[in-house]
Amino acid sequence: MSLLENLNWRHAVKAYDPTKKVSSEDLNSILEAARLAPTSSGLQPFRIIVVENQELKEQMVKGALNPEVMRDSSHVLVFAAWDSYSPEKIDKVYDMHTDVRDLPRGRFNSYTDQLKNIYGSQTPEQHFAHTARQTYISLGLAMAQAAELKIDSTPAEGFSNDVVDEILGLKELGLKSVTLLYLGYRDAEKDWLSTMKKVRLPMEEFIINK
Amino acid sequence: MSLLENLNWRHAVKAYDPTKKVSSEDLNSILEAARLAPTSSGLQPFRIIVVENQELKEQMVKGALNPEVMRDSSHVLVFAAWDSYSPEKIDKVYDMHTDVRDLPRGRFNSYTDQLKNIYGSQTPEQHFAHTARQTYISLGLAMAQAAELKIDSTPAEGFSNDVVDEILGLKELGLKSVTLLYLGYRDAEKDWLSTMKKVRLPMEEFIINK
Repeated sequence: MSLLENLNWRHAVKAYDPTKKVSSEDLNSILEAARLAPTSSGLQPFRIIVVENQELKEQMVKGALNPEVMRDSSHVLVFAAWDSYSPEKIDKVYDMHTDVRDLPRGRFNSYTDQLKNIYGSQTPEQHFAHTARQTYISLGLAMAQAAELKIDSTPAEGFSNDVVDEILGLKELGLKSVTLLYLGYRDAEKDWLSTMKKVRLPMEEFIINK
Repeated sequence: MSLLENLNWRHAVKAYDPTKKVSSEDLNSILEAARLAPTSSGLQPFRIIVVENQELKEQMVKGALNPEVMRDSSHVLVFAAWDSYSPEKIDKVYDMHTDVRDLPRGRFNSYTDQLKNIYGSQTPEQHFAHTARQTYISLGLAMAQAAELKIDSTPAEGFSNDVVDEILGLKELGLKSVTLLYLGYRDAEKDWLSTMKKVRLPMEEFIINK
């Protein structure tokens, strides 16, 4: 099916069947879409933590708005962004770029110098505001790929970042949780949203032509 | 082609052929993907301004990092987010939800009251940090749809928000620009990135299994 058909098919599922698991093959292709997401300057300033372990999920639901949705999902993807940029992190990414492309290291120095100047004048709070935004591109593409596979997903911001960061040890990794994506298969009887029409602003209100 | 094939095909094009225009049919399907993007609580707290007019583009390039890319693109999509949440805006969206679903208005009052409480305790700066994030989901899906149509696109954060907001009169609409998406057809000779390998972190570094 086309992307538009898949986007019309999906919705934020409100109840999962806890007995149905996403296969590792399908999970990998969802993660692949997330990995291919473009990011600002190609820095990919975030990581995805994959949580399948039920005990970990039980700990992570503390403070979540819809604990049963997280609990009954097959997998929880935690999108966690860099807490800050640094010259070292930028160099590491661009060393990878030049290595993969068989270019001499330093080939992009004038560009990375620019980046280092920009981020060097900003606070870690400004850095995280920027890294966090990038995760949403990846989140959206992961949902689109799940929909292509007819796997349900639920994006979630309603959880305790402190709880999740602590349980997953994200601080030590220089990461902070931004969003969660629950994956699994809906329990159609309990998922009240399954029977409701998708609602979006009409195109003429959503778009402003200039 | 599949979403993964499309994501592998696309890259942030660095030079457009100014003589090639995206058809209105294709443009509409890209906007449709953007419109279908899920957003926090379904509020769709942003709009897309479509700029095709060359004079407007010439004004908007002031302060842009890659002015010629914007200038030579076929269309510029400006993703502009609400400068703040308000009870009125939330009610307007949920009135639409109940109307479209043939439910009594007020059916979601307990939920919207929660939202009003949360946003009521936050500053406009916190609101915009949140509305801006939502635009990135839509940006990603618009790029994916463009790629499905083999239309090139370039996401851009490197432009003057003040210039763009002023020229498009966004403040009066309660909007602030977040990102741009240039659409068009590449000039393969000038687009140095066309011949380079796509670089992404290896899966084993991007993913953390728990």
